[in-house]
Amino acid sequence: MIVTELIEKKRDGGEMTREEIEFLVNGYVAGSVQDCQMSAWMMAVCIRGMTERETADLTAVMMDSGDKVDLSDLPGVKVDKHSTGGVGDTTTLVAAPLVAACGGTVAKMSGRGLAHSGGTLDKLESVPGVCIEQPLERFKDIVRNNGVAVIGQSADLVPADKKMYALRDVTGTVASIPLIASSIMSKKLAAGADAIVLDVKTGNGAFMETLEGSKALAREMVKLGRSLGRRTVAVITDMNRPLGMAIGNGLEMKEAVEVLTGRIPLGDPLVEVCLILGSRMLTLSGLADSVAEAREKLVDALRSGAGTRKLRAMIEALGGDPAYIDEPERLVKVKSIVPVCADRSGFIGSIDAKKLGISAALLGAGRFRKEDVIDPAVGILMNKRYGDTVKEGETLAYLYVNDDKHLDEVVRMVSEAVSVSGERPAELPLVYDVIE
Amino acid sequence: MIVTELIEKKRDGGEMTREEIEFLVNGYVAGSVQDCQMSAWMMAVCIRGMTERETADLTAVMMDSGDKVDLSDLPGVKVDKHSTGGVGDTTTLVAAPLVAACGGTVAKMSGRGLAHSGGTLDKLESVPGVCIEQPLERFKDIVRNNGVAVIGQSADLVPADKKMYALRDVTGTVASIPLIASSIMSKKLAAGADAIVLDVKTGNGAFMETLEGSKALAREMVKLGRSLGRRTVAVITDMNRPLGMAIGNGLEMKEAVEVLTGRIPLGDPLVEVCLILGSRMLTLSGLADSVAEAREKLVDALRSGAGTRKLRAMIEALGGDPAYIDEPERLVKVKSIVPVCADRSGFIGSIDAKKLGISAALLGAGRFRKEDVIDPAVGILMNKRYGDTVKEGETLAYLYVNDDKHLDEVVRMVSEAVSVSGERPAELPLVYDVIE
Repeated sequence: MIVTELIEKKRDGGEMTREEIEFLVNGYVAGSVQDCQMSAWMMAVCIRGMTERETADLTAVMMDSGDKVDLSDLPGVKVDKHSTGGVGDTTTLVAAPLVAACGGTVAKMSGRGLAHSGGTLDKLESVPGVCIEQPLERFKDIVRNNGVAVIGQSADLVPADKKMYALRDVTGTVASIPLIASSIMSKKLAAGADAIVLDVKTGNGAFMETLEGSKALAREMVKLGRSLGRRTVAVITDMNRPLGMAIGNGLEMKEAVEVLTGRIPLGDPLVEVCLILGSRMLTLSGLADSVAEAREKLVDALRSGAGTRKLRAMIEALGGDPAYIDEPERLVKVKSIVPVCADRSGFIGSIDAKKLGISAALLGAGRFRKEDVIDPAVGILMNKRYGDTVKEGETLAYLYVNDDKHLDEVVRMVSEAVSVSGERPAELPLVYDVIE
Repeated sequence: MIVTELIEKKRDGGEMTREEIEFLVNGYVAGSVQDCQMSAWMMAVCIRGMTERETADLTAVMMDSGDKVDLSDLPGVKVDKHSTGGVGDTTTLVAAPLVAACGGTVAKMSGRGLAHSGGTLDKLESVPGVCIEQPLERFKDIVRNNGVAVIGQSADLVPADKKMYALRDVTGTVASIPLIASSIMSKKLAAGADAIVLDVKTGNGAFMETLEGSKALAREMVKLGRSLGRRTVAVITDMNRPLGMAIGNGLEMKEAVEVLTGRIPLGDPLVEVCLILGSRMLTLSGLADSVAEAREKLVDALRSGAGTRKLRAMIEALGGDPAYIDEPERLVKVKSIVPVCADRSGFIGSIDAKKLGISAALLGAGRFRKEDVIDPAVGILMNKRYGDTVKEGETLAYLYVNDDKHLDEVVRMVSEAVSVSGERPAELPLVYDVIE
């Protein structure tokens, strides 16, 4: 096969065979297909699209490009969850321990924050001592003993995705449903879970901003999971605002603990989305017959403190100091807390979640380049949420600051991101759809 | 400006501003835009296309990326010609001297052979001693004294095209009218001529195989030339067969001399296309009021031997030994001449000109990689042309061979390329259209 002919085939809208996709992807990992060739092909995929069959083949070829995790010696149905990335969206740290407390087996490999969106690994590392790189056997031992472990993806899992993702990031080829779906699902499938719950975010703080795009992505991923024999469900949730009140790693870990210890009541959006995702994880695991039954079990685990104990034990098993879970305010010790105030009275109207995510990253909570170092304590704690009334001079959000280099810019950005309007805004749904 | 955002704009079908095109192309030449980014953008251009304005801006930005040749101190209208590349197609070596013999000023920078198509520089170098790299002032002196000079493009002419073309070649982004048109025209415009005659080939031996595509390319290039103030005409000519009988560098130089010395009669396809292109060069130069008048002048120059004298003087000025023009059979001394014979009687039906070009290249007349060395004496001399009758066992073509490494393969390929059919084939037009 000749690389340029394969690129031309997709350029002209053709359908690639499994063998052709293998030749390109494996060649790219091996170095015989060049960056410039892969980026031209991926641009053709962005514009021409892929059939279901092509996307499934691409996913399988990527999954097979490196090591695969074998979880078959762990008991029960191994369940994973994945979010497409949001702001103030710490569902894994709540839902995974709660599911484990209800008897589930959660063996999850997670990722880091990307651009404006947070990542579970960065949040875990806000607890001093936590090491997210663990040998596979140690990872499985933690799951075996505790029912839940979340660690970083091993270096040899899906090398094709690592190389392709780095290239897509600089070549304008991120926004493609077949490429996003194969990237996510090849990693989830290689990580060995039997069941996968996907949280597909939609809205101004999500990578997929339109509901239509989010639904298409969700459908594609559910199909991919099933075609490779995994129980898969996708929940499409709102990201037109931060899900919780906290944006920043220590702040989000603290908020997760507050949810698990009942300090944030049922009905709160973060709590509700955690329960919705957790319910799906339990039903896919065969540990509840209905979503309603699953929810009851999860609420019990929340009220009994069993969820907190699972999180605490996991943090300790990863080398972290559990005292920070007992006293989570220790996670967010900063030099100064700066309020951002409303300049008029009214209702909190639209919120630009992406801008809030970028603001938190500018304070040191996120990365703009791979090599940027995160400050775990800094970020933004919202004081008002979508639809709340606010008086002129009242605090909209508190900035947790250690380095004030970008402070003026962040104050301006946060003011702009949270608009105060004279009219009460329409209510936003929390969940738009469930694809099963 | 952010590179990925510019790539995404074209990916999504947007129209780039002049400043955006400058940022990308100049950044690519300077190294701040990477190969993988440029190839993704060019793939988006291949699929999404470009508006006339974008193509004109791209051409102007490429033209401005390096040195430009100033021919204004030469007398009269400086006229250039360019062929999009064919097989057995040695029109420059005939038309340029004839036009000079009629008082024209032909200052032409030419290229090398590419894949199956020949290049004028390689043909010139078949004459021992010819040096196609000449300082600009020397080049102009030859034109001043002789009316015609053909040399290689200087290294600093349109560096953007050099880099972009090398990338397009390996990334499946060659077949795009805006990219082909801007590549050709940026070089023609930077080379300084006032008037340009384009020979756009169409058919199985051309890079643009369909008439529709060839017409679109021709129209685009004529528009580009005019938008930058140059008199420009395109002639769309047939490339469903080799134009002349010779394929190979010395063989084609010899054939050019045979045309100029009247050994090949009027009416022969090569002679006619040379006269058609030359006529357009003369009318654009203001040296003839009509194409018919121009043709008469050219035929006179042919009959008088004035054209041969111009070619001979140019070869001598470039350092070549003019004895090879006087005795052109010295150009094609080879170890063996191998006939390829017809295996049935009938008419010469379809001819695969591209396959003949590749066959000649396999004998050593062309390059598959930049670093391949050409043997000037080898190639193919056709003995039959399209529509001729042929008897079983009669020679279809003679192979001029020095190295018989690929001989068996070439014999098979040439037999396959020239089909003998029971029915007389339909006549092929020589010229399909003139875009002016």
